[in-house]
Amino acid sequence: MTEELPLASSTQVLIYDTTLRDGTQREGLSVSTEDKLRIARQLDQLGIPFIEGGWPGANPKDVQFFWQLKEEPLTQAQVVAFCSTRRPNITAAEDPMLQAILAAGTRWVTIFGKSWDLHVTEGLKTSLEENLAMIRDTIEYLRASGRRVIYDAEHWFDGYKHNSDYALKTLEVAIASGAEWLVLCDTNGGTLPHEISSIVRDVIKATPPETQLGIHTHNDSDTAVANALAAVIAGATMVQGTINGYGERCGNANLCSLIPNLQLKLGYKCLEDNQLTQITQVSRFISEVVNLAPDEHAAFVGRSAFAHKGGIHVSAVEINPLTYEHIEPGKIGNQRRIVISDQAGLSNVLAKARTFGIELDKHNPAARQILQRLKALESEGYQFEAAEASFDLLMREALGKRQQLFEIKGFQVHCDLVQGIENHNSNALATVKIAVNGQDILEAAEGNGPVAALDTALRKALVNFYPQIAEFELTDYKVRILDGHSGTAAKTRVLVESKNAHQRWTTVAVSTNILEASYHAVVEGLEYGLLFVCCSTEAALISSS
Amino acid sequence: MTEELPLASSTQVLIYDTTLRDGTQREGLSVSTEDKLRIARQLDQLGIPFIEGGWPGANPKDVQFFWQLKEEPLTQAQVVAFCSTRRPNITAAEDPMLQAILAAGTRWVTIFGKSWDLHVTEGLKTSLEENLAMIRDTIEYLRASGRRVIYDAEHWFDGYKHNSDYALKTLEVAIASGAEWLVLCDTNGGTLPHEISSIVRDVIKATPPETQLGIHTHNDSDTAVANALAAVIAGATMVQGTINGYGERCGNANLCSLIPNLQLKLGYKCLEDNQLTQITQVSRFISEVVNLAPDEHAAFVGRSAFAHKGGIHVSAVEINPLTYEHIEPGKIGNQRRIVISDQAGLSNVLAKARTFGIELDKHNPAARQILQRLKALESEGYQFEAAEASFDLLMREALGKRQQLFEIKGFQVHCDLVQGIENHNSNALATVKIAVNGQDILEAAEGNGPVAALDTALRKALVNFYPQIAEFELTDYKVRILDGHSGTAAKTRVLVESKNAHQRWTTVAVSTNILEASYHAVVEGLEYGLLFVCCSTEAALISSS
Repeated sequence: MTEELPLASSTQVLIYDTTLRDGTQREGLSVSTEDKLRIARQLDQLGIPFIEGGWPGANPKDVQFFWQLKEEPLTQAQVVAFCSTRRPNITAAEDPMLQAILAAGTRWVTIFGKSWDLHVTEGLKTSLEENLAMIRDTIEYLRASGRRVIYDAEHWFDGYKHNSDYALKTLEVAIASGAEWLVLCDTNGGTLPHEISSIVRDVIKATPPETQLGIHTHNDSDTAVANALAAVIAGATMVQGTINGYGERCGNANLCSLIPNLQLKLGYKCLEDNQLTQITQVSRFISEVVNLAPDEHAAFVGRSAFAHKGGIHVSAVEINPLTYEHIEPGKIGNQRRIVISDQAGLSNVLAKARTFGIELDKHNPAARQILQRLKALESEGYQFEAAEASFDLLMREALGKRQQLFEIKGFQVHCDLVQGIENHNSNALATVKIAVNGQDILEAAEGNGPVAALDTALRKALVNFYPQIAEFELTDYKVRILDGHSGTAAKTRVLVESKNAHQRWTTVAVSTNILEASYHAVVEGLEYGLLFVCCSTEAALISSS
Repeated sequence: MTEELPLASSTQVLIYDTTLRDGTQREGLSVSTEDKLRIARQLDQLGIPFIEGGWPGANPKDVQFFWQLKEEPLTQAQVVAFCSTRRPNITAAEDPMLQAILAAGTRWVTIFGKSWDLHVTEGLKTSLEENLAMIRDTIEYLRASGRRVIYDAEHWFDGYKHNSDYALKTLEVAIASGAEWLVLCDTNGGTLPHEISSIVRDVIKATPPETQLGIHTHNDSDTAVANALAAVIAGATMVQGTINGYGERCGNANLCSLIPNLQLKLGYKCLEDNQLTQITQVSRFISEVVNLAPDEHAAFVGRSAFAHKGGIHVSAVEINPLTYEHIEPGKIGNQRRIVISDQAGLSNVLAKARTFGIELDKHNPAARQILQRLKALESEGYQFEAAEASFDLLMREALGKRQQLFEIKGFQVHCDLVQGIENHNSNALATVKIAVNGQDILEAAEGNGPVAALDTALRKALVNFYPQIAEFELTDYKVRILDGHSGTAAKTRVLVESKNAHQRWTTVAVSTNILEASYHAVVEGLEYGLLFVCCSTEAALISSS
């Protein structure tokens, strides 16, 4: 990343993603360090310039995240560590949270401080003067340690409404101490767009002309996106938000709506055009990683966002899409969908195949066959967005290039739990039957759960034929219940992530029986690993043929 | 309803609900006539002045709806029938759709017509002059038949941007023909608030001073609520929207956000204060009727909208709610909620207990005991954020107030899957052993998966003792794998949501064995339902004791 980027040009708006910090405040969302790294790499690839990674002083898990990124850095994004100003009545150097921030080793740090006098006196229980000193000391200390600083003015809009003089003083101090950005935060989410607009204009008048302003909004009034847009129109050049609008209470401003609005409607530059086309896929990928059902009705990126019902709409939209679509869905990587007769897809399949290095002609009957199989599986509940290994296997099967390494013939699982008897290391027994080169193999294994038992039995059955299997590891296992209203009789979608020393890959399966879905996803994970990961020469052979 | 109401006073905004017409365009939403009547009566009670019931000419089911309302009318709301202008090149009297509208027998009718020249020539394939005649004839015909008319100017904003002269001409014709309201529709949802604002002001300048304007927005740009607010600030005095923002593609403007914003923040009058406190309940009621899970993160009415995490927040909010809440949740019938998470401190536990009607002193040893148990369970992977029923059971157990209705003694599960044999309706067999009043009961059941089989066996075992169990339904089942790096040997957290006709509750359990976790969550769901949901007198007894 070049040093120039953080100075936004007049038509550029810098996007600052806080999915990994503010986004994880959403009730019901929890992520591992591994999940956070996967999300950060996706955002990096999308072209987001600032990615807030977490609060290392408050959350020990976040420390690990920053360390791992130091070993394997992002390609273009700045990863930012987040922290509050120092505590009252100590020096910055004495505050362990600031030590943790320095240890995170990022070039950029975001410091949040109090703008609202009420929060200083009632929340922090300190004096208004001491709060200013806390802002000053913290920023100066970080600048002296070689960090670049973004200042988040917490509760800015409420603070300004209650005591604008004091609120403006906090900004003055932040600028004088060396903060390069001032981000105005609507922390409680109660402000409406016309107020945002007028207060941002006030701040511009009250601060030096070279001041760079950002905006951070929450959706408690259902206007987070409009609030951020109002701030940009008034002169802010940085926008903070989260993918899918994840965040505490009603969420943060949704970047999946903001970026297309800014770029396609207001003419600001946020991402390259070829990055913008990835935003739908990134939205869905991240919802899979955090294991929350994607919002099908989300603006821009939702599955229903360009869905057309009814005859008039459909024919009109086919003659002139402008009549019923506010933007061209392809620009954000989404697609038009005709709800009754589902036509979408062939060009998608071809594009997808290309990403796996397979050039498919649209007249190739295999292309239509893949499309049909895909549609059939999707209507059963399969989703391939986060399970590209399974999609790859599907494509190669249609092309006659999925070599059969083994055949699965069935399995049995038995669980026996007697209340009060702790026997958790072997409470499930699984038997699997497979065939390799026409030879039947029956193996049994115990486990501390039925899926672990199935996995172990399967490996026992295969390892003599394919010793590489010992290098594969199951790294994540996710379960999503589809049509949840059917309760325990609902269909289950299982995602399994596998890895070896060099690579990770994800497979998917669906069944009303959670064990069957798990079994098939594990089987495909092993199969994909054997075919395309460890035997890289063979994989190359297949994809180039 | 009095005749004066449709003239909005300067501080009054008339709400026009289109949940039953535009809302039902949402993909995946379908309602019976009976459902529509239940919804209409709720909206009537809430104090919504206009309720659009449907399009009787296009949908035969809607005819029945209007007839039933004629037999049992609403108490205060005007029910409105919706229809397009007459077809090209026939008279209004010849158009069967207009006959159907008259047959619906409503006093008010909403007619939509084309504002955008492109839609006239390319969509309707008629001349711009004929479109004006269609608007004129239709409104005049309805007026002559004694109807009052609202005119929806479809695609208004896009039409105005492309050809403002023609668009304004359509409004002139509608007024001259006797329409009492002109509603400007952003049909494709692509317009942003600042454009809405400026175009509404243009319309006000171009129309006679007594013209009454309405606004109808869609959420394709994620700004539907802000768009409607911008129109009201610019001078519109009617707002069309739907409960929970249901609607085609990304939905319509959400009345559950709009009404509180208009009334509590902008000082307009929409409902009586004692009606506004019903809006959270109405939102949830309607989501039940249409059978869609309520959006827990919805602004104002969502279950998480006033949820607080973390110690500092909680103590601050208890001292002065204004510091962390944009409005008083009670004003809209929602409530503050203290989220129990791994950061829980004693004050969180006490605050939480109060929400369950349990007054706990911080010196009560039970309080510390609950906190310790909570921390122990959380370190095992339990999370109570979304499982308040389990937390309630835990608290009552510590207080010695969890009555034991039955004892679980163990279960067995057997799955047998032979590849290629489709036998999905009964591929799992479960046996459960429980004791009620010292009597052992053994029951077995089959299912299309092991959890369904366990659930069925458990109900069979309990229903003779607790027949209320038949009213409980499992509505959602969520699985999250913890410490995913252990793969299939990882711990599994299962959340089960149950409901009866009146209430929903969620329970949680954790185990390395997914079946064991599922079993315990299902068991607690049944137990909580029996203890605190159906036997409300007993619940009251326990909480007051």
